[in-house]
Amino acid sequence: MLDKKQLFNNLQAIKNQSPIVHNITNQVVMNFTANVLLALRASPIMAHAKEEIAEIINLSKALLLNIGTLDHTLIDCMHLAQKHANDKKIPIVLDPVGAGASLLRTQSAKDLLKKGITVLKGNANEILALADFPSNSQGINSNINNIEALQAAKKISNKYQCIVVISGKNDYIVGKNKLLTLKNGNPIMQSVTGTGCIGGSVIAAFLAINNNSFDATAYAMATVSLAGEIAAKKASGPGSFINHFLDELYHLNENDLSGICYE
Amino acid sequence: MLDKKQLFNNLQAIKNQSPIVHNITNQVVMNFTANVLLALRASPIMAHAKEEIAEIINLSKALLLNIGTLDHTLIDCMHLAQKHANDKKIPIVLDPVGAGASLLRTQSAKDLLKKGITVLKGNANEILALADFPSNSQGINSNINNIEALQAAKKISNKYQCIVVISGKNDYIVGKNKLLTLKNGNPIMQSVTGTGCIGGSVIAAFLAINNNSFDATAYAMATVSLAGEIAAKKASGPGSFINHFLDELYHLNENDLSGICYE
Amino acid sequence: MLDKKQLFNNLQAIKNQSPIVHNITNQVVMNFTANVLLALRASPIMAHAKEEIAEIINLSKALLLNIGTLDHTLIDCMHLAQKHANDKKIPIVLDPVGAGASLLRTQSAKDLLKKGITVLKGNANEILALADFPSNSQGINSNINNIEALQAAKKISNKYQCIVVISGKNDYIVGKNKLLTLKNGNPIMQSVTGTGCIGGSVIAAFLAINNNSFDATAYAMATVSLAGEIAAKKASGPGSFINHFLDELYHLNENDLSGICYE
Repeated sequence: MLDKKQLFNNLQAIKNQSPIVHNITNQVVMNFTANVLLALRASPIMAHAKEEIAEIINLSKALLLNIGTLDHTLIDCMHLAQKHANDKKIPIVLDPVGAGASLLRTQSAKDLLKKGITVLKGNANEILALADFPSNSQGINSNINNIEALQAAKKISNKYQCIVVISGKNDYIVGKNKLLTLKNGNPIMQSVTGTGCIGGSVIAAFLAINNNSFDATAYAMATVSLAGEIAAKKASGPGSFINHFLDELYHLNENDLSGICYE
Repeated sequence: MLDKKQLFNNLQAIKNQSPIVHNITNQVVMNFTANVLLALRASPIMAHAKEEIAEIINLSKALLLNIGTLDHTLIDCMHLAQKHANDKKIPIVLDPVGAGASLLRTQSAKDLLKKGITVLKGNANEILALADFPSNSQGINSNINNIEALQAAKKISNKYQCIVVISGKNDYIVGKNKLLTLKNGNPIMQSVTGTGCIGGSVIAAFLAINNNSFDATAYAMATVSLAGEIAAKKASGPGSFINHFLDELYHLNENDLSGICYE
Repeated sequence: MLDKKQLFNNLQAIKNQSPIVHNITNQVVMNFTANVLLALRASPIMAHAKEEIAEIINLSKALLLNIGTLDHTLIDCMHLAQKHANDKKIPIVLDPVGAGASLLRTQSAKDLLKKGITVLKGNANEILALADFPSNSQGINSNINNIEALQAAKKISNKYQCIVVISGKNDYIVGKNKLLTLKNGNPIMQSVTGTGCIGGSVIAAFLAINNNSFDATAYAMATVSLAGEIAAKKASGPGSFINHFLDELYHLNENDLSGICYE
């Protein structure tokens, strides 16, 4: 169900094509996001001025929307980018950071979902909130993985016709009658900001070169969690982890991919 | 006067409780701040949209206000967060970055001080400016440590009923009839952006789990300067320092704490 | 044409004088920019509130304008800072990130150019766009280096009476009847965000202590590309590169400078 050979070919395609990925994302992870995409040899662009959104989308092969430090100006910008991306049939990834923690976040994420996105990637609490299931939100770092989150993901996937990722200890990729469970990663990733958020941008990079949204999403999440797992073994803490993680993403080879665990 | 055993217990409490710390801070240090709090296993949230401030404060155990890249929108947001935090009796740390360098910064910091904060943490020039003492500002990286700064800190502490920290080569913690001098740290920390600012967020994390504001503040500043001192010994420059610093914060153990120097 | 002895003296002058460099720059590279300037012992300030621009410029020895994540508020702020800097005869560096990728960026950069800047630093596509030459923009990471870009640079340099830098595999410094080609660097720098942008801030730091704009610009670009080249040899990927790069900038000595290649 996860073709490692094709994953490797996709990594090569990102390297060779350097697709431009437009990120409208939060201020905390902008730098890390750009470095992660560059490590994979994708071309990140960050732009949020209304006047240039249409032109930037025209240059881009995928769009990432992340509501981590949203405000009204940024929400307007995201809707505009979404409209142009959907008009141009450019894939869109939504990361609903903190949905469930405030009405503004929950409602903003739902508004974007309704207008058409390709992949929704959140943690269990965010996915529960967007499906109107009860959650016990402890903010943005949730580890809850349970049957309810999967039911919520299926509900959202059916309702909005999108792929849904539940990120956490295991990552779940939910599509139409499809479920893939990815089992790589390392707990230290929870002690580094943006290890969740960059998943959304890496998904966008894979969507840019692979029309199969489910496969592209699975490959992206497997890439991030595998690189994280390898990096964690070399790191002596979250600081050195960041370096090793970028280095691993840069060097990831076909042999490394044999380490991917899934079911 | 600084109970290392209790400091260690506080570090464990942060790990076990993962208190949510709401940071309204500057764009330069957001990522580093989040990584520092995560290294201690606290839960950072960054949020500045007016519509969600009340909800975010409700989730949070402490609030950090840092005016490093302030503008009018952000100042309004800080006042709103301060009001909700004071209503809920949530501790507030103010870092008046650049007070004295512009009227906007000096006045904004004073306005926040007047409305009630728990801890003020600044360098000597910032503290002098907020006490209306003359300073010779060289911007935001001051090393002046002198009797006048301590007098200024005492004046502010009395006037606004708050703990005042003067950060620098030595860190001074000033409370009602109390003074603690912390002597750890390393000069290389001046060559890494945010090593001052993250002090404020770490104070907030300790305030979140310790009601004694003076002790919490002292423990936080000792933790930052000790981890910095240990990291500096392992680093070959400011770049590698950043990694070692995060790694040390992550691993800091009871034995390490014996290295804390104070009087 | 590039006096390595004087370059070293300039590095020492930055260390000794710690000139304040005001950066109005993009959100992606703010942290890295501050760390690069601090590694050289310059004093970075980031400030963008209109109310304080005049005071901050008064404290500063150089101004960096980078349009990487521009919007109307920031553009207004840049014009105000430019006006005050020109009134005070403080040198200004403009980095027109993404000029050519959107009308807003192209036009904003031209507006700033017209009102007087000291040094323009861009990649080949950005320089081509600002000279109204045709380009084949692939966004912000261009490697095109050709005769046309040099002609564009000369046109801009003559028209706006400024130094023009074309950054890329080789860096070209174009002044009135002057051309210097710098040949250091390493391809891995393209996989780290901000390695272009920080060039502009380092130029500003050299302009702060050297009145000869051409020399200051050449020294700055040589410093960045040499430190990058040395760091790349020690790094195992883009993550570890970042650390080594900051460490090298911090330790760069007279002996290292013998590695500078130019013609």
